Amino acid sequence: MTLATLIEAVPNFSEGRRPEVIAAIVEAIQAPGVLLLDAGSDADHNRSVVTVTGAPEAVLEGLFRAVAVAAERIDLFVQRGVHPRIGATDVVPLVPIENITLDECVVMAQRLGRRIGEELQLPVYLYAAAAMRPERQRLPDIRRGQFEALVESIHLPERAPDFGPARVGGAGAVVVGARPFLVAYNIYLDSSDVALASAISRAIRESSGGLPAVQAKGFLVNGQAQVSMNLLDTEQTPLHVVFDTVARLAGEHGVTVHRSELIGLAPQQVMLAAAAHYLKLSIEEAERTVENAIRRKAAE
Amino acid sequence: MTLATLIEAVPNFSEGRRPEVIAAIVEAIQAPGVLLLDAGSDADHNRSVVTVTGAPEAVLEGLFRAVAVAAERIDLFVQRGVHPRIGATDVVPLVPIENITLDECVVMAQRLGRRIGEELQLPVYLYAAAAMRPERQRLPDIRRGQFEALVESIHLPERAPDFGPARVGGAGAVVVGARPFLVAYNIYLDSSDVALASAISRAIRESSGGLPAVQAKGFLVNGQAQVSMNLLDTEQTPLHVVFDTVARLAGEHGVTVHRSELIGLAPQQVMLAAAAHYLKLSIEEAERTVENAIRRKAAE
Repeated sequence: MTLATLIEAVPNFSEGRRPEVIAAIVEAIQAPGVLLLDAGSDADHNRSVVTVTGAPEAVLEGLFRAVAVAAERIDLFVQRGVHPRIGATDVVPLVPIENITLDECVVMAQRLGRRIGEELQLPVYLYAAAAMRPERQRLPDIRRGQFEALVESIHLPERAPDFGPARVGGAGAVVVGARPFLVAYNIYLDSSDVALASAISRAIRESSGGLPAVQAKGFLVNGQAQVSMNLLDTEQTPLHVVFDTVARLAGEHGVTVHRSELIGLAPQQVMLAAAAHYLKLSIEEAERTVENAIRRKAAE
Repeated sequence: MTLATLIEAVPNFSEGRRPEVIAAIVEAIQAPGVLLLDAGSDADHNRSVVTVTGAPEAVLEGLFRAVAVAAERIDLFVQRGVHPRIGATDVVPLVPIENITLDECVVMAQRLGRRIGEELQLPVYLYAAAAMRPERQRLPDIRRGQFEALVESIHLPERAPDFGPARVGGAGAVVVGARPFLVAYNIYLDSSDVALASAISRAIRESSGGLPAVQAKGFLVNGQAQVSMNLLDTEQTPLHVVFDTVARLAGEHGVTVHRSELIGLAPQQVMLAAAAHYLKLSIEEAERTVENAIRRKAAE
């Protein structure tokens, strides 16, 4: 039995104005087996974000082709936009979706980075879970000073690329990495007390000693207190743990949760884990859906 | 955008002993586009149960072919087994899985029944949600007296088939219908009090005035009180409503739920509805999984 392995990639390209260049990139990325989920461009940012999915081999091939087209068609010596950028293909995050671990995506990021470095002769930096140096885990740290600073400093040891030559052309550098799926999640309280939402946010966010891999901020939305969150790693801190924690903290102030809200998509696993938790089911049983059985059979 | 429409069918054939006949039926049912999920035979019962899924047109074609093979190879004048039966293909339930309603499956059952009646010249009875007479909703009522009684009584008005001729050959009759997905679900209590499990079962089962479309019975399993259930229609009574009701009734006696257990498969929808309920999410948001988005895109 061969289960389908699925990754997602969300490459960002430093072109949001010339439709023919964007079209060429979007066409190139769709190698056989690559499914285009979304493509959006912003003229002010002068940037396009493309979301693709598929088997790792297919996605890696599509990404390589798109990076090659972007390198050929985008010249950062002339490109200008509101959004910071260091390369024609600015950043390529690989995200595990199904039957693949984050560690395996790190290996994929290394393979893609090596190929871009060797075959396209572009400097490549590995970031996030794929970072080979601790100071390269965060994208903003790698991108500091943008393309223009890199041109001046790539010869320095601390800016030595992980793959490819230590020299910069008009295509700049490519930052490649692996990270978990990011879930954007909000919880609305039965209260207009934005101070309470802020206090709960402080209590749960990792940066102030709360839950691992959780970013949170309190807002007032249409008169309702909202805890707005990014869940950076729902294996580490599941969504239902976040919900229960917020509900408990609000309850300590006599406030109940009104509703919660998912922005964009979440992996199926997040919902099945929540169902298993509340129903006191094993996660294996919660995953035993008809749809999963069909996909498993179809992959045989 | 064309969403994939998926039904499941679980036809029962009155042959569980001759491997070559079972193989011929299982081969016939796999028309192009039909996915075989499971096939099991019981020699004592002299019966085989086959589970297939796919687009309605494909599944209907596969079922028709399998019914034709069964009619040719099985002779109920000689077939004997522990399990009651009225036909070579005894019963064909159609089950909505995805992007299709139960009412639409009723129409499919009517089409399949008409074709079996006309082209194979077999008497066909419609049952469950597809029943055209109230006394034909329950399979045991249609099958009363089995094949042998039908031979004697098919000329009577009350036994007039819904499709096909009012005469019985060795292939007997075929009962075709549509029903929701059946979820087999157990809840274990933190207690060895089987009387409590029985009392809760009586309180929740439809037959004694409890929750619609719920069958329940109390058992003692490895010293633990168990409420064992069939959920016949999880749209009418969702699984999480059953869990919450059992937890509340047990709580009235100071007993908590230890764990729950899913036997076999459940539609993904059942788990997503539970997640949405406990997380106070809209069902639309709970359904917005990466996997669903991919399947939707792939179907475009």
